[in-house]
Amino acid sequence: MKVRIVTIGDEILFGQIVDSNSAFIAQQLNRIGLEVDEIISIHDRHTLIVESLQKLCPDSDLIIMTGGLGPTNDDLTKKALADFIGSEMEIDPSVLEELEKRLKKINLPMNGLNHDQALLPKKSSALHNPLGTAPGIWTEYNNCVIINLPGVPFEMKNLIKIEVIPRLQKKFDLPFVIHHFLAISNFPESQLAIAISDWENHLPENLHLAYLPERGKVKLRITGKDNDKIKLQKQIDTEVEKLIPLLGNHLDSSVSGATEEVLGSKLKEAGLTISTAESCTGGMIAHLITSVPGSSGWYKGSVVSYSTEIKESLLEIPKELIEKHTVVSEEVAAEMAKSAVRKLNTDLAVSTTGVAGPAKGEDGKEVGTVWIAVTDGNSVLTKNYFFPYLERDDFILQVSKLAMLKVIEFIKNHSKK
Amino acid sequence: MKVRIVTIGDEILFGQIVDSNSAFIAQQLNRIGLEVDEIISIHDRHTLIVESLQKLCPDSDLIIMTGGLGPTNDDLTKKALADFIGSEMEIDPSVLEELEKRLKKINLPMNGLNHDQALLPKKSSALHNPLGTAPGIWTEYNNCVIINLPGVPFEMKNLIKIEVIPRLQKKFDLPFVIHHFLAISNFPESQLAIAISDWENHLPENLHLAYLPERGKVKLRITGKDNDKIKLQKQIDTEVEKLIPLLGNHLDSSVSGATEEVLGSKLKEAGLTISTAESCTGGMIAHLITSVPGSSGWYKGSVVSYSTEIKESLLEIPKELIEKHTVVSEEVAAEMAKSAVRKLNTDLAVSTTGVAGPAKGEDGKEVGTVWIAVTDGNSVLTKNYFFPYLERDDFILQVSKLAMLKVIEFIKNHSKK
Repeated sequence: MKVRIVTIGDEILFGQIVDSNSAFIAQQLNRIGLEVDEIISIHDRHTLIVESLQKLCPDSDLIIMTGGLGPTNDDLTKKALADFIGSEMEIDPSVLEELEKRLKKINLPMNGLNHDQALLPKKSSALHNPLGTAPGIWTEYNNCVIINLPGVPFEMKNLIKIEVIPRLQKKFDLPFVIHHFLAISNFPESQLAIAISDWENHLPENLHLAYLPERGKVKLRITGKDNDKIKLQKQIDTEVEKLIPLLGNHLDSSVSGATEEVLGSKLKEAGLTISTAESCTGGMIAHLITSVPGSSGWYKGSVVSYSTEIKESLLEIPKELIEKHTVVSEEVAAEMAKSAVRKLNTDLAVSTTGVAGPAKGEDGKEVGTVWIAVTDGNSVLTKNYFFPYLERDDFILQVSKLAMLKVIEFIKNHSKK
Repeated sequence: MKVRIVTIGDEILFGQIVDSNSAFIAQQLNRIGLEVDEIISIHDRHTLIVESLQKLCPDSDLIIMTGGLGPTNDDLTKKALADFIGSEMEIDPSVLEELEKRLKKINLPMNGLNHDQALLPKKSSALHNPLGTAPGIWTEYNNCVIINLPGVPFEMKNLIKIEVIPRLQKKFDLPFVIHHFLAISNFPESQLAIAISDWENHLPENLHLAYLPERGKVKLRITGKDNDKIKLQKQIDTEVEKLIPLLGNHLDSSVSGATEEVLGSKLKEAGLTISTAESCTGGMIAHLITSVPGSSGWYKGSVVSYSTEIKESLLEIPKELIEKHTVVSEEVAAEMAKSAVRKLNTDLAVSTTGVAGPAKGEDGKEVGTVWIAVTDGNSVLTKNYFFPYLERDDFILQVSKLAMLKVIEFIKNHSKK
């Protein structure tokens, strides 16, 4: 089955926004056994949308398009869809009724442009959108299902859940897709590949291996697809069992997921709480940790001491210590973490102090310098890095991930409460 | 000139990562006057990469591909490129030499897989990558420039800056692209479109208007392209002058950019400092504010009081107040903000307290409930929202953006220091 996602919008092609819609859609499709073959982003021009449908439709079973459904002149998707399938437009009375209710509720008058949002190609049907004025559109044309969704993320996500997924499951007979992840550390990608090449070459045809390198570690992903879920799971388990001995002590954990999820599960498992004292990461570690549902079970809070003044006042780092060692130093990082353990009353704390750039630090420290410290109030693990080539955003993210990895390392080495 | 970006990797099509590489590349190309026509993401299969080149090359002047340059079996881009252009592979001695130095530095042996990273199609040339083992590749084939870059973001970004942009500027005679943004508030998109339709219909052919709706406001983007930069800037200025009177008092600010950038410039302009006291946003506001270069000029820090205990201890919110009004209340939000102004010694502070979900709050408050407060220590602006349909991540981002908008509103209403 061939599946394509088309995201429409100049802002994507100017690089003014990152297209996260397509990742969400791909994920949700994956859960019901649909693999996406291609994601395409195009400008919102009538001819480009028509051309794209002409090219893709004959070779696709499913096309999901987002964007270009708003009421203004640059939103041309609906007209392009109607022209492509050769259908007149007509008012959908149920959409119009909903629209009237919605506008009344927010005290807006109905005008010509809003009225036209209830216009749909005759051959299509509406996907009712309770969160916005533009309905989604479901069209079946020459054995291809074309689904149009608004580009506003929360409207699109809601429509995927309440309308698109149930309809697709009803329409298609779908296989199961299972992903299995293994995190490997201290095993360079090329050496790892050699060590497991024999195993990889003998994988069954419906299983596929991928290497996902991240700094300092590699994730292996085994992906399988089959109509029989139980058989598929067994098949994957068998292969993982064969693989594990080849990885020796490099196998980090069989937990999958992002660093913040792994950290969350480690803390939960060990029954430990944590707090953060962040300088150069400016709240990013707190944000990542609290992005995990249930994080209030292990996370209490953070002091983001962006200015030196706050390090002295709220964290009570002695002025003399800062003057002696400078603010970006092992000593200050350690004191920040210790102070967080005390002041936020947690089992562990992690701290960062560094220079994200683009300008040098107050004390002349080079852009890209950073110290990380982890402590339980007694032992302290410190580590410094230098990332002169990273952009500000990447530096902040990279240091935040490394800080969480250091906490995982600390828990491993001190695994008793 | 036709420009395409192709990102290669199963993880993009499984929705396991958001493809932010293409947005970065598009932005950088835009700066030198190159507009991207299409972004395409495909699986890392040899045939798919070759097919994609076959389809795109005859109709493109420039193709930038990322991903699939690593040493392992699932990294097939280089082989596919060589097959497409019909070129043998040979070792590039300068790449091999760099590789040897690099591996020596990090104490890794040279193995067959690493050695092959110095293999390039004979007809191509290497783009030296100081941050990784895989070089970029520059190929000219039938009037189409094909550039291959590694998928690891920081390696890719560095190569774009040090190699790709300078070479493209040398190779092509490039026009200028200018974007002008106007933020509009309290003017629904459809009414705005009617109010300015006459102006829009008379725009010169080389200028293009786009509506970028965000919750509560609309951004207008005017994009122009011309070989003469000064002429183009004048043309845009003329049109903006005509447009402004049509917008009345709905024109929010002529500052472009994300909420955190607008907030930063407002604070800088007013000479005010700010701190944050975050509960449900878990550090996201701190992160967004500090993502702006120079933010240490207006931002001092945050207390992320994720647990009630920290609200009581670090922010000294009276236990009785929390018991009386519950933790997600106007009163607690106001006290959190006031406490931040005092404890972090800033002119302003903003606070959030709410339930991000998926589980209900400790006190049984519904998922999606939130209170925001802004204060200068005297006046307090409070506001509550209810977003029951938002996913956890979207809720956190939405509330953080709204909190910053509330600060901007507060500054507007109290504009004296």
